[in-house]
Amino acid sequence: MEKAPLPNKVREFSKWYDEVLSKAELIDIRYGVKGFVVYRPNAMIIVKKIYDLFEDELKKRGHKQMLLPLVIPMSNLRKEAEHVKGFENQVFIIERAGGDVLEEKLVLRPTSETAIYPMMSLWIKSYKDLPMKLFQSVAVYRHETKATRPLLRGREFLWIETHDAFATSEEAEAQIKEDLEIAKKVYDELGLAFIVVEREEFDRFPGAERSFAYDALMPNGEVLQIATTHYLGQKFSKPFEVMFMDERGVNRYPYTTCFGIGISRTLAAIIITHGDDYGLVLPFGMAIYDIVIVPILYKGKEKEVIKKARRIEEIVRNAGYSVKLDDGEETPGEKFYKWEMLGVPVRIEIGSREVSEGTVTVFRRDLRKREKKKDGELVEYLGYLKSDMIRVLRGRSWNTLKERLVKVNSREELLEEAGKGKIILANFCGKKECADGIKAETRGYEVRGRRIDEPVEPWGPCVWCGEGAKRVVVLAKAF
Amino acid sequence: MEKAPLPNKVREFSKWYDEVLSKAELIDIRYGVKGFVVYRPNAMIIVKKIYDLFEDELKKRGHKQMLLPLVIPMSNLRKEAEHVKGFENQVFIIERAGGDVLEEKLVLRPTSETAIYPMMSLWIKSYKDLPMKLFQSVAVYRHETKATRPLLRGREFLWIETHDAFATSEEAEAQIKEDLEIAKKVYDELGLAFIVVEREEFDRFPGAERSFAYDALMPNGEVLQIATTHYLGQKFSKPFEVMFMDERGVNRYPYTTCFGIGISRTLAAIIITHGDDYGLVLPFGMAIYDIVIVPILYKGKEKEVIKKARRIEEIVRNAGYSVKLDDGEETPGEKFYKWEMLGVPVRIEIGSREVSEGTVTVFRRDLRKREKKKDGELVEYLGYLKSDMIRVLRGRSWNTLKERLVKVNSREELLEEAGKGKIILANFCGKKECADGIKAETRGYEVRGRRIDEPVEPWGPCVWCGEGAKRVVVLAKAF
Repeated sequence: MEKAPLPNKVREFSKWYDEVLSKAELIDIRYGVKGFVVYRPNAMIIVKKIYDLFEDELKKRGHKQMLLPLVIPMSNLRKEAEHVKGFENQVFIIERAGGDVLEEKLVLRPTSETAIYPMMSLWIKSYKDLPMKLFQSVAVYRHETKATRPLLRGREFLWIETHDAFATSEEAEAQIKEDLEIAKKVYDELGLAFIVVEREEFDRFPGAERSFAYDALMPNGEVLQIATTHYLGQKFSKPFEVMFMDERGVNRYPYTTCFGIGISRTLAAIIITHGDDYGLVLPFGMAIYDIVIVPILYKGKEKEVIKKARRIEEIVRNAGYSVKLDDGEETPGEKFYKWEMLGVPVRIEIGSREVSEGTVTVFRRDLRKREKKKDGELVEYLGYLKSDMIRVLRGRSWNTLKERLVKVNSREELLEEAGKGKIILANFCGKKECADGIKAETRGYEVRGRRIDEPVEPWGPCVWCGEGAKRVVVLAKAF
Repeated sequence: MEKAPLPNKVREFSKWYDEVLSKAELIDIRYGVKGFVVYRPNAMIIVKKIYDLFEDELKKRGHKQMLLPLVIPMSNLRKEAEHVKGFENQVFIIERAGGDVLEEKLVLRPTSETAIYPMMSLWIKSYKDLPMKLFQSVAVYRHETKATRPLLRGREFLWIETHDAFATSEEAEAQIKEDLEIAKKVYDELGLAFIVVEREEFDRFPGAERSFAYDALMPNGEVLQIATTHYLGQKFSKPFEVMFMDERGVNRYPYTTCFGIGISRTLAAIIITHGDDYGLVLPFGMAIYDIVIVPILYKGKEKEVIKKARRIEEIVRNAGYSVKLDDGEETPGEKFYKWEMLGVPVRIEIGSREVSEGTVTVFRRDLRKREKKKDGELVEYLGYLKSDMIRVLRGRSWNTLKERLVKVNSREELLEEAGKGKIILANFCGKKECADGIKAETRGYEVRGRRIDEPVEPWGPCVWCGEGAKRVVVLAKAF
């Protein structure tokens, strides 16, 4: 069998990841500022697609796009006590511009609660202004002290943040469900499996009353948080004096939520989840082309082959696919290597045999399988591949996740399954000491929280202390 | 005649502008950091549209989208001597993050030449890598010392910047023409008139060998630079050591260009050029809805009217328009006011007369005219309005510009026409002293440069010193 061009994704994940980012020309890490990377065109095609999918879905559900300034006055950041504690040690600070010292220090947005709430206090006056559902698509800036990894843990990362305000806590709670539906819809289209947990009290977003996290799976069994939803109650509306007059003329504080969708991390999850040892694997619409045509030229037959390749190119383009006829000087093997690395979903090979037979050889990237089709069957087959490939990718992703999930009944089982890199469901009492104990003895398994996308009732005592369990939680290592 | 809700756009432009930004809920200036504004949803719809049009056009012509970090190391900024002189007094500086002092000072990108060229030196190795045509859609940051105006002169503004590298100066020069074609195509779709000038030597972008500016017209006769193209020659490729090996194996420096498209200023130009004393005027596809339907309810006829309004809503939506049936509790007059302020292109009014006649009353926002149409004629008429309204807006914009343009033959004529707020075409010797003289005596008329979209040959001596003229230049006040 041919040798794969990349290190093995599961066994040598770090090397695989660095090489695929570089060889598929996705991310350049040589910019020279720690935690900041360059998104190359192949990455930006995927980034745009992810943004489009989420933005469309948010708009369909009543969100409107806005754009807040990058900079936040330090005094704003300090208005919500827990929030500032969570972020003040990781904000980038601007004190000077040109020759001038600024009157007030500014920070680069680490998240935008303290930018939007002063504006909401101006925009919201009456119950008629509610619900107010806004979002922005921006980069945020956090001076992470931990080691940085491109797309996974950076100091500049792309995301979407919603900021929603409601008259009642019930409506705000309902928004949490809607956020989950939005994520489900889009991650399905991207073929990504994920689990959703409600965080424990000791592990919430600074200032939040309830926090929810969306975790995707890494090849080593660790989980990667790709999105979060927070129920903020009135914790932000009060200090920022956001008020509305209700139907009876009474001034009240709205209940608010926010939803942070990690676009950089979703990009990473797509690369990592679908990719293989030959490079990127992408569904239709996300690679540089949907289809490449590679003519296989034999002496004396070049003209016919090229003629057919052009005809097929025309047919495929007219069917609505983005297509590239690669008639460059490289060998077919070099071309196969290149387009597979870039994750182009379909390759059509045309040689003199295909000319004489009236066929085309179609290679699908997800399964790395060739199939011969009559010319007349091609367009219908491409339609099938378009839906089948995303189905295959999605199925593979969910199967991998399900195979990793295991229920444990005791400390011993927990330690054994943790040793195998499983994602563990266990009964839990809710105490931080137990979470700390588990983390220490499993070398890093964290209580991710209570699963809410497929809730499970406790079936026994806390797996760690043996006292009464309040809920079933997911235990996993965080990437 | 009804009283217009806004001050007169021409006579009280500043008041008009501030009020339309606020009443059409476009921009909120109350964020609290000088030069930084909030883009509200109605503005973001237009911003997205402008970005989409330019990005599509750039991609069609071989540009690829990338994304560079926000921050640039101070040492990069200092690599091109003229460039740093032009920007160092207006960059925002980051020296600290969290508790740490950064090893190297970072600046927020004022433009990204000094971010992209170090990367190009890694990406470009051979003539096969050229041309390299890249762009990014980002905000840039300049601590302007002049008075700020929302969208027009801010410290954070949205733009697109291309960075293109070519093997030969001829190809780079050809890119300047292509940039002009891109601008022409998109500004035509937006209905905006503009003139393109090549800047005088004393007025170039810091580091550029040739600079070109795209100017739109303000109601007071001043011009607003909405885009620029720069021919950088080898001025950046040399200090950043960007090199390629040519076909003969010789290492050479590529020739580069950049194209900066002011998205914030284009938004301002759309608001200002098309808007009137009743609010925004927008072509189809750029307002919150293409069409609003306002039922005019008389007692006893409500049901029939609402029924017809719903039927028309269905027809219009099926024809592909975004439509809102406004059956809220406000009076028809209040609804008219609101949707006109937001620039909704078409309003359909339906009362009991329209029900009995089988007609609809169609109001077009650009001309503020009503026309009655048979129900069966509606869809065809909307198709006509869609193309006619942008044609009307574009024609109005170009006529206004042409009416302002005047040729002068002497100092006296120049001073007289300058007093009338005209945009002036005059013969010019090329000397900075003459430009300074003109500026001083006309209270601010600048030599904008030689018009290149419709070149004119000199027909006499320099309008100021009377010596030989090298070219015809545009003289105007800059907004």
